[in-house]
Amino acid sequence: MKRLVAGIDVGGTNSVFGLVDEEGKIYAEGSIPTYKYDDFDVYLQVLCDGVKNLSAKIDEPYEVAGIGIGAPKGNYYNGCIEDAANLKWRGVLPCVEKMKAHFPGIPIVLTNDANAAAIGEMIYGGAKGMKNFVVITLGTGLGSGIVVNGEVLYGHDGFAGELGHIIVSVNGRECGCGRRGCLETYASATGIKRTVYKLLADHIGDSALKNISFNELTAEMITTAAIKGDPIAIEAYRHTGEQLGRTLADLIAITAPEAIFLFGGLAKAGKYILEPTEKTMEENVLFLWRGKVKLKVSKINDKNAAVLGASALAWKIIREQ
Amino acid sequence: MKRLVAGIDVGGTNSVFGLVDEEGKIYAEGSIPTYKYDDFDVYLQVLCDGVKNLSAKIDEPYEVAGIGIGAPKGNYYNGCIEDAANLKWRGVLPCVEKMKAHFPGIPIVLTNDANAAAIGEMIYGGAKGMKNFVVITLGTGLGSGIVVNGEVLYGHDGFAGELGHIIVSVNGRECGCGRRGCLETYASATGIKRTVYKLLADHIGDSALKNISFNELTAEMITTAAIKGDPIAIEAYRHTGEQLGRTLADLIAITAPEAIFLFGGLAKAGKYILEPTEKTMEENVLFLWRGKVKLKVSKINDKNAAVLGASALAWKIIREQ
Repeated sequence: MKRLVAGIDVGGTNSVFGLVDEEGKIYAEGSIPTYKYDDFDVYLQVLCDGVKNLSAKIDEPYEVAGIGIGAPKGNYYNGCIEDAANLKWRGVLPCVEKMKAHFPGIPIVLTNDANAAAIGEMIYGGAKGMKNFVVITLGTGLGSGIVVNGEVLYGHDGFAGELGHIIVSVNGRECGCGRRGCLETYASATGIKRTVYKLLADHIGDSALKNISFNELTAEMITTAAIKGDPIAIEAYRHTGEQLGRTLADLIAITAPEAIFLFGGLAKAGKYILEPTEKTMEENVLFLWRGKVKLKVSKINDKNAAVLGASALAWKIIREQ
Repeated sequence: MKRLVAGIDVGGTNSVFGLVDEEGKIYAEGSIPTYKYDDFDVYLQVLCDGVKNLSAKIDEPYEVAGIGIGAPKGNYYNGCIEDAANLKWRGVLPCVEKMKAHFPGIPIVLTNDANAAAIGEMIYGGAKGMKNFVVITLGTGLGSGIVVNGEVLYGHDGFAGELGHIIVSVNGRECGCGRRGCLETYASATGIKRTVYKLLADHIGDSALKNISFNELTAEMITTAAIKGDPIAIEAYRHTGEQLGRTLADLIAITAPEAIFLFGGLAKAGKYILEPTEKTMEENVLFLWRGKVKLKVSKINDKNAAVLGASALAWKIIREQ
């Protein structure tokens, strides 16, 4: 019988899930609106039913061999989601333990979305065969999954890899964490919006972005404008890449990775983000690593990436059993 | 028969070595002047003879069960010393391989001094039982040994942990690495000297440090002055601690350690370095880790620390065999 695992990505708006084989082929997918469920137990019930109901979409017989879950503030060590700012449930939620009641007898593992993306890159993507690499997720915020000697760097409490919250500018931009100048206030979908607005404030001259309100503006719109040659959009990517490149140079000095992969919405801008990031990274990195650390766009960076990343988490555990 | 290991610390000026038991008791010690040997093979011969001749200082019978070596640019993976700036031998030196000819049949391992210090802390010191912690060595430069899940973070090429070379000030102080603003130009024995001179340039008022030339000034003198209440010395430690504390806050976000240990000459200043470092670290760390990461002076921070650290490397390998 075919063995599949369920990959589940818990997002603030939607939770998406799919059944995936060991090569990363997705057999069926579904989603539920996370934000509509005030009660975590009810949410889990609906989520697990959704996963089970995927059977209707698959013709051949299969077994679910494991479940991987990517969730904000997902703690690999204890299987709990711990006070995630963008989820409505407060406190420490024993996600894995409760899910075991719905899927008894199979491995169920949880981590945060950036770590799931890193394992996805290792199992299905560009980091196959690599033991030391980093995945940077450039979404609403900035996350990082750091792989050291083939294992995710979880740290003492499970929350390592908060690269988005290293302070790159003393007294810089306000961050949702209550501090100022965090990397993700510059290098993320939200960060580049703020940079566009800063550039529109500082410069004169035409830009298509002048017609779009802050709340309407998306990273995709900035990318589209950059492709059309909009100088503000191109400059915004350059600023973003510079800030990110400086931090990656420092991250290399600490972790000495073989490669760094950019993942998420901003990574879809391709050369507009990659070129300034790489240029600044190379200009700033210690001579030991000059020209040696590959910077690439994630190979699993499509719409199914979150499901793939979460499913990889399950395959990794199954392989090691 | 008693089992001892040799711990060897290769320094630019002297190489010190000792025979150490599993509890960290040093049975005999010796040293040779590294800088006097132009030829690496001759140096190794004299070094190995020195280790063998320690037998004259030990009354009871013993066997040498392994050798641990801490050396600048010591690469754990290949056992080579690779173009260390403060050693006179250039190129990639196969240190472990050549030493095996002198001590056949026992494990011989090499890493850099900061990683050796971290393993020393884990085997004999304050990190006993810890799986995730960091040791910061504050010597002529700044090094770091980062332990993740019980293993040193070596990275892809063996050179991870160059925390001294993350850039904390764009266009800041010139660094020996050819760049500007590296952490170690502020937080190290050399860095605090530069800070003293900056403060003497900027401020008026009396200070004992005004009588000492740059080349004569040592970190010990600054510590002594601080203990006597010298305002420039105290302020220099405060500046140093601030810079270090900011970086440690960022390092925590990346690696989530249980504790951070300060090691080396500057760490001997005790509260003068510890208090400003801890204050700034706590002010700047992400809320997740506020009040949670211990900052301590190394427990093996005495004159034998380098030998202890190197010997711990050997005990770690022997335990895992």
